[in-house]
Amino acid sequence: MQYAEPILRLIKALSTLPGIGEKTASRMTLFILNAKGGYAEELISSIKDVRDRVRRCSVCMGFSEKDPCRICADASRDAAVVCVVCDYRDMIALEAAGTYRGRYHILHGLLSPLKGIGPDDIRLGELVGRIRSDGAIKEIILATAFDAEGEATAHYLKKALNRFDLRLTRIASGVPVGGHIEYMDPSTLGRAMEGRREI
Amino acid sequence: MQYAEPILRLIKALSTLPGIGEKTASRMTLFILNAKGGYAEELISSIKDVRDRVRRCSVCMGFSEKDPCRICADASRDAAVVCVVCDYRDMIALEAAGTYRGRYHILHGLLSPLKGIGPDDIRLGELVGRIRSDGAIKEIILATAFDAEGEATAHYLKKALNRFDLRLTRIASGVPVGGHIEYMDPSTLGRAMEGRREI
Repeated sequence: MQYAEPILRLIKALSTLPGIGEKTASRMTLFILNAKGGYAEELISSIKDVRDRVRRCSVCMGFSEKDPCRICADASRDAAVVCVVCDYRDMIALEAAGTYRGRYHILHGLLSPLKGIGPDDIRLGELVGRIRSDGAIKEIILATAFDAEGEATAHYLKKALNRFDLRLTRIASGVPVGGHIEYMDPSTLGRAMEGRREI
Repeated sequence: MQYAEPILRLIKALSTLPGIGEKTASRMTLFILNAKGGYAEELISSIKDVRDRVRRCSVCMGFSEKDPCRICADASRDAAVVCVVCDYRDMIALEAAGTYRGRYHILHGLLSPLKGIGPDDIRLGELVGRIRSDGAIKEIILATAFDAEGEATAHYLKKALNRFDLRLTRIASGVPVGGHIEYMDPSTLGRAMEGRREI
């Protein structure tokens, strides 16, 4: 005795989603089966809508209903600075912080020799092409995580952008606001010390 | 700056699913946007399939492509015993255990005065109706959790089934196989003691 075939199929499709195991996927499937008020229809139509109406911005590789996206089309934003992020959600988080007024480039992943993710698997070529064709860009700010994949991507970019006349910077690593010194790991404290500034 | 409207709509639809918060829903949405190989289509078609092909078995209230479902239609299963569960997944788990040869009734919820879930919100009326019309039923086994909602449901059933000539039993509560005595909570140990048997 097992679930009926259509149930199994939906469980399988849902467990492909990141962070969703088989148990959660079967909970989700039974929720969809039990849900009232046209929930399944709303879900179907939302997925369709996202697939049909959202495209990739050809400048920054972000998602948008328009191409170029709102940020790339916004003349009031500083065209000289491009902040490079791993994921579209990172860009949303930086925008929510509200201090940055430059543009973005979304890599949709980071280099990972371990996972076999190379330069061609992420949007690195598009970044280099953009820098080559857009003379206004003077600084690239790398806003990636400080882990092995972030390091690998930083290392690669340093080499790939060497031939261009621009600043390559990286956001600061250190103790987060509200974080307690005693709970920080040694490498964070090491970086915080190294990156100390005059007050 | 926020996500585009279709993205926000899908995030909202996905965060309605049980156990899915807004962060996970936005991760899922971006995965769907990034996914290749017709993943969005497969997801849409699986949801449609589940909605169109899966129905409720009119006997046990479970989900099935046929009505009555395979178990209710199986003449080799003991029609005298009905095991009452909260959820369709509980039935699947009991079937996987492989020892039970009776039938099932799925309540699709448990009574919960705290959450405002009363007898009419779950499939209790269908159970009583089934017992009334099916003279073959001689035992009802309650296989619900041993928490406040399970207790409330057991208490209600004891009263509601009082007028019928049948045994009302409940699965055993105690130390699970592989569980360590030292880590068990006092109420489990209390129940395990209370339910002790000759060896």
